[in-house]
Amino acid sequence: MNLITITSDWGANDHYSAAVKTKIYKYAPTVKIVDITHHVPVFDIGKAAYFIRNVYPYSPDGTVHIIGINTIADKNSAHLIVCYQNQFFVGTDNGIFSLLFPKGEIPSEVYEITEMQDHDSFTFPSRDLFAKIAAFLASGTPPNQLGKPTQIHNHITPSFPIIRYEKKSDEHILHAEIVGEVTYIDRYENVNTNIHQSLFDDLKSQFLHFEIFFGGSESVRKISAAYSDVGISNILALFASDGYLQIAQNQANAASLLGIKKHTQIIVRFKN
Amino acid sequence: MNLITITSDWGANDHYSAAVKTKIYKYAPTVKIVDITHHVPVFDIGKAAYFIRNVYPYSPDGTVHIIGINTIADKNSAHLIVCYQNQFFVGTDNGIFSLLFPKGEIPSEVYEITEMQDHDSFTFPSRDLFAKIAAFLASGTPPNQLGKPTQIHNHITPSFPIIRYEKKSDEHILHAEIVGEVTYIDRYENVNTNIHQSLFDDLKSQFLHFEIFFGGSESVRKISAAYSDVGISNILALFASDGYLQIAQNQANAASLLGIKKHTQIIVRFKN
Amino acid sequence: MNLITITSDWGANDHYSAAVKTKIYKYAPTVKIVDITHHVPVFDIGKAAYFIRNVYPYSPDGTVHIIGINTIADKNSAHLIVCYQNQFFVGTDNGIFSLLFPKGEIPSEVYEITEMQDHDSFTFPSRDLFAKIAAFLASGTPPNQLGKPTQIHNHITPSFPIIRYEKKSDEHILHAEIVGEVTYIDRYENVNTNIHQSLFDDLKSQFLHFEIFFGGSESVRKISAAYSDVGISNILALFASDGYLQIAQNQANAASLLGIKKHTQIIVRFKN
Repeated sequence: MNLITITSDWGANDHYSAAVKTKIYKYAPTVKIVDITHHVPVFDIGKAAYFIRNVYPYSPDGTVHIIGINTIADKNSAHLIVCYQNQFFVGTDNGIFSLLFPKGEIPSEVYEITEMQDHDSFTFPSRDLFAKIAAFLASGTPPNQLGKPTQIHNHITPSFPIIRYEKKSDEHILHAEIVGEVTYIDRYENVNTNIHQSLFDDLKSQFLHFEIFFGGSESVRKISAAYSDVGISNILALFASDGYLQIAQNQANAASLLGIKKHTQIIVRFKN
Repeated sequence: MNLITITSDWGANDHYSAAVKTKIYKYAPTVKIVDITHHVPVFDIGKAAYFIRNVYPYSPDGTVHIIGINTIADKNSAHLIVCYQNQFFVGTDNGIFSLLFPKGEIPSEVYEITEMQDHDSFTFPSRDLFAKIAAFLASGTPPNQLGKPTQIHNHITPSFPIIRYEKKSDEHILHAEIVGEVTYIDRYENVNTNIHQSLFDDLKSQFLHFEIFFGGSESVRKISAAYSDVGISNILALFASDGYLQIAQNQANAASLLGIKKHTQIIVRFKN
Repeated sequence: MNLITITSDWGANDHYSAAVKTKIYKYAPTVKIVDITHHVPVFDIGKAAYFIRNVYPYSPDGTVHIIGINTIADKNSAHLIVCYQNQFFVGTDNGIFSLLFPKGEIPSEVYEITEMQDHDSFTFPSRDLFAKIAAFLASGTPPNQLGKPTQIHNHITPSFPIIRYEKKSDEHILHAEIVGEVTYIDRYENVNTNIHQSLFDDLKSQFLHFEIFFGGSESVRKISAAYSDVGISNILALFASDGYLQIAQNQANAASLLGIKKHTQIIVRFKN
């Protein structure tokens, strides 16, 4: 199996992804290519990371992910091959590699690409360099033949939720809150948050009750397994397949109807 | 040949189709994947059926079609494999299977999927179940190893045209009308209707003349074979490649220029 | 290697490209397919040519390019196979073949397709004829078995820049200008022009200085190699990877910020 994915902010109106793909096939005629999306908002590496995080866990071993966003290299941001769990991530050290992996993990097997690009213009590294590197990796060339060992230098702090405890004077915990926020509203207007199930489960094990608030007068006191667990248009909370808390309405537009936007505060309150 | 198509309402802005495709390749590395479209309006199974109907007749034997719209199963709507003319349709029994086949035909070789899904969340069956089922079918696993025989339970009545006859007292037919409607306006503003060529031909064989009306003062008295049979901007009627009557203008926007919308009445009047 | 690209004005909302692809796989199950774009503005063959010109130089030998725009043939515009530099271009002689190749070059190895189409409707040659022709070519059938020798008959004059010289009475050249125009503004709002590097280099070799003007009070006196050669938001000029002069701003929207539109005049002034 040799699979290459491409994520970018190029849009679908231009020829960019086609030029990258035909270059890939030139070097690796039998590879498979999957577009993750080319509709990342221009220069939005946070959203690009979100999309890639939702695909690579489902990808076969050996998959190569081309990250075609903010790709121009300079003294402080090199072109990298990052190795993580038998997959390869090819892109520029612009901060995105600090947002891709669970709990802010930073992979240690990293190579700065030393292979020369094909063209003496420097406006399109995805076509002139990453396509070739991805083709070689997908064909079995080990990354240490394409670059020299280095580290990830640029880090962006992702938005992590805050945990607040209210304690009595004897240090007995009265109640606790996870204060998270909305990270992304999808096409169905499902509301995705930065509250991971592992954090939720950890607090839930310490308390009898919980209640989830999302800005208005509504709240939810139960985690559902599926949208259809509640009646049509009813509000529910569940953990989406990427492990993060999601607020939704069964076959209705939760975000608009509940007045929720990106960065709206989401609070999970635990008590006994 | 092992080909899988995907139709959905996921849009192109998110990672959904990529997650499904990488899962397919995990199980079936040599398969080919074609996106029919991911721009079906949210929850619009009628339009999803229209797109699939326009592709499967051109697909190779053995093609598997993943239907990624309204996919959540419940007691009344199971996950199905529907077999029709050497092709497989994998989706949820939400009514769409009554809209896919010619003249409302309902296939009888149908299996309820019994294979377990990969994940214990139930928000994304296309990735967690249909991808795997499609990969197995495309690789040659017979459907009866993936499910148990059942029937299609949910039916939606498609909009069929009405036929009106005006008769004399001696039962002699004076004239007849097919009263159909506009089902879809495409990117070129061609106007597609629910009037099938077989119905038109049946009536045409009984009368000398026909005339097609579409709401305004204009009409057409001839069936063309190609847009270029008439001058630029002229109105024409033809049978599109799916067999249904289409009103168009050669290199112009018929729908806007003629004031035609979805559900506008289209009348074909036959007389001697 | 057998690769087929598709360029069209069908958009992504409909089933058109899927019908073409499934037909291709029917005839050539092992081929690879790359979409250049389906978002060419309706009937805009100039823009379609721009996209294809930016992809075919990166494509492997033997690649077949389906041109799915203004495809209906008539007496004056035949369905053609055009051979150029070991690649094949399949489309209709609607003028686009005069816009595809460098410096208006017109290939001489051209065949009018004589192979019959699959369907007796004539509304969709890309599916009913070009898919099959492309599949055969990609599988190694020589073009002279699919058509008879002909020429390209329809030519469109592309917009070439004008060159103005100011001379003294002794014929000594005082200064010169290239007067070009904006041909395309891309998603990043980079401004692409019709001024090719070969023309620029030719004049540059005759003068000491140059300055590039683009309508407002700003100008640029230097050619950059990369966007990051200048500070963020600074204006630069470079030759894009298709060889044409581009005006851009590093990580900013040049077109809006500089008030530049399609057809805005771009002047390069040379002097000593």
